[in-house]
Amino acid sequence: MKICVLPGDGIGPEIVSQAMRVLEVLKQDGLKMEFEYGLLGGGAVDETGTPYPEATQRLAKEADAILLGAVGGPKWDTLPREQRPERGLLGIRKQLGVFANLRPAILYPELANASTLKPEVVSGLDIIIIRELVGDIYFGEPRGIEERGGERVGYNTMVYSESEIRRIAKVAFETARRRNRKVCSVDKMNVLESTQLWRDVVTEVHKDYQDVELSHMLVDNAAMQLVRNPKQFDVMVTGNMFGDILSDEASMLTGSIGMLPSASLDENNKGLFEPCHGSAPDIAGKNMANPLATILSAAMMLRYSFGQEEQALRIENAVKKVLAQGYRTGDIYEPGTNKVSTTEMGDAVLAAL
Amino acid sequence: MKICVLPGDGIGPEIVSQAMRVLEVLKQDGLKMEFEYGLLGGGAVDETGTPYPEATQRLAKEADAILLGAVGGPKWDTLPREQRPERGLLGIRKQLGVFANLRPAILYPELANASTLKPEVVSGLDIIIIRELVGDIYFGEPRGIEERGGERVGYNTMVYSESEIRRIAKVAFETARRRNRKVCSVDKMNVLESTQLWRDVVTEVHKDYQDVELSHMLVDNAAMQLVRNPKQFDVMVTGNMFGDILSDEASMLTGSIGMLPSASLDENNKGLFEPCHGSAPDIAGKNMANPLATILSAAMMLRYSFGQEEQALRIENAVKKVLAQGYRTGDIYEPGTNKVSTTEMGDAVLAAL
Ligand SMILES: CC(C)[C@H](C(=O)O)[C@@H](O)C(=O)O
Ligand SMILES: CC(C)[C@H](C(=O)O)[C@@H](O)C(=O)O
Repeated sequence: MKICVLPGDGIGPEIVSQAMRVLEVLKQDGLKMEFEYGLLGGGAVDETGTPYPEATQRLAKEADAILLGAVGGPKWDTLPREQRPERGLLGIRKQLGVFANLRPAILYPELANASTLKPEVVSGLDIIIIRELVGDIYFGEPRGIEERGGERVGYNTMVYSESEIRRIAKVAFETARRRNRKVCSVDKMNVLESTQLWRDVVTEVHKDYQDVELSHMLVDNAAMQLVRNPKQFDVMVTGNMFGDILSDEASMLTGSIGMLPSASLDENNKGLFEPCHGSAPDIAGKNMANPLATILSAAMMLRYSFGQEEQALRIENAVKKVLAQGYRTGDIYEPGTNKVSTTEMGDAVLAAL
Repeated sequence: MKICVLPGDGIGPEIVSQAMRVLEVLKQDGLKMEFEYGLLGGGAVDETGTPYPEATQRLAKEADAILLGAVGGPKWDTLPREQRPERGLLGIRKQLGVFANLRPAILYPELANASTLKPEVVSGLDIIIIRELVGDIYFGEPRGIEERGGERVGYNTMVYSESEIRRIAKVAFETARRRNRKVCSVDKMNVLESTQLWRDVVTEVHKDYQDVELSHMLVDNAAMQLVRNPKQFDVMVTGNMFGDILSDEASMLTGSIGMLPSASLDENNKGLFEPCHGSAPDIAGKNMANPLATILSAAMMLRYSFGQEEQALRIENAVKKVLAQGYRTGDIYEPGTNKVSTTEMGDAVLAAL
């Protein structure tokens, strides 16, 4: 199994190196893995002038899976658009066609206090948001800023085709079959034609999944219901733009976004695995960041891209164990627990393995 | 002062009639107001075949302000798009040019328990979301669903011009001057050119408001920060689509969306005033709905369209008083308070006036 490792910017390198320690243990225990490192994001811009260099493109295409830290930082925010770190991220997603972004929002019982929501509202929360990742207004053309009638006008295109909607709907229904068999599809069909088509196609695909319950919800209502009663959901499926907003809202419900992994899969389960959180430039290089979301992303990689369910569980159980043992990085620390650094958290996970 | 009253669908007529009782008292006390009733939404479709009939258009144009209940219901959801109640709402907003939608999210101390967030996170919450209401992907062209390469494709256009952004930015800064002088502008400039222009223009307009603090936030982060620490905000300004999502999320933080009014203003403070909540078809006609958001919308009308600050405060204080007295409709009821019907709540407000 060939794995392309892209540490990225900010805290990226620190958290990825903890995940690599975990994978090295599994390798020593017999799991066949080869690692190749590449540049993506701001660091890539600094070294090569572009956020997704050719060399990385080659590595990513040849790999069976990609493990990514995080990209971006204020240093690169004023560069021309094509050179910004985010373009690297969007570029690799699009080029690899990893259209299905799976973002679980799980509340770890040990971290229940970290949520800003009342315990009874979030205890036991376990939902997954499936976000379409390579279409929608993120990539739609035409787009740009131009002069019209003597003033600047900025525009973008929200667009979805039947086949794009169909394939992500299937992922949602398949995922629901392995869970509680409930899919809530989110759109804004009362205003946007593109999401009217979304609702129509999801409803059509549902005919092949009659054992799964399908509901539809408008995006404004979904943003409310996530706050009002998030446990009503099992699988939520939506487009790239709405998914960006709702999945971040959902992960914050758990109060510990530093704990949440994500998987982005193509049609053959080749995938890009990254934590839900960003590059946190403010704490970069300080050995303070929480490496658990990246370690859990590595577990998702083993599960989804390599079918190694047992090894995935081994990692996930190790993470649960260190939480039970009281180890906490600063972001999830509370009095009475044991505050540790990034590397110490890595040590603890290794010991628990 | 000419007021066009549009009760609308579902609980609309019930809640509007309580607001009208309040306005009638003020009229008897000497405030010069004339009321004319019109049809909008599903009821208008049933009677005239269109959700925003000519007669209503005439009334709305001649009026100085419009008081609206709510529109929509499952009965009309399967009609062709042009006949759906929402088109009436979008039509009247656009025709009147009420581009500035002011949506306060205030936590009433008496209702603190209704929030799903921890008391320390939301106590004293008082933020206002200013949503651009007549532009963006809501109205952008081209739009539609069509056949391309043998499959259906749905598309919409997100678009903002400099002048549209400029005028809403001004409203945000002016509003902040009457509050805590902080504006947070929300965009997705790292992906969308239309919102890159948004950020640029808001930054330019800020030059004339150096006494106000301006920050920028990406929409995914804003959705998180509203859950993590909503009290960090004072005035939030954003486009139509993001504003739809974030303002609903924000209002749910208070746990009592049945309490929240809204104002939509044009350049001359002519406005459309409506509760933030919807038409709640499930409880329509049952004398159960909470009329306070509509009563508070009438107060906003007096403040913003008619400059009657004193009368607005009189209504708002009456609402505070009935809450302090323990009157609650079902949506905000908790044990130990006095559960009342829509009309009884109206009675209580009248008595408190
Ligand atoms: C960095 C940005 C381009 C990206 C996105 O909007 O997709 C991020 O917010 C995410 O959710 O992974
Ligand atoms: C009913 C719908 C068209 C409307 C909107 O999206 O603007 C509503 O959600 C609102 O926020 O007033």
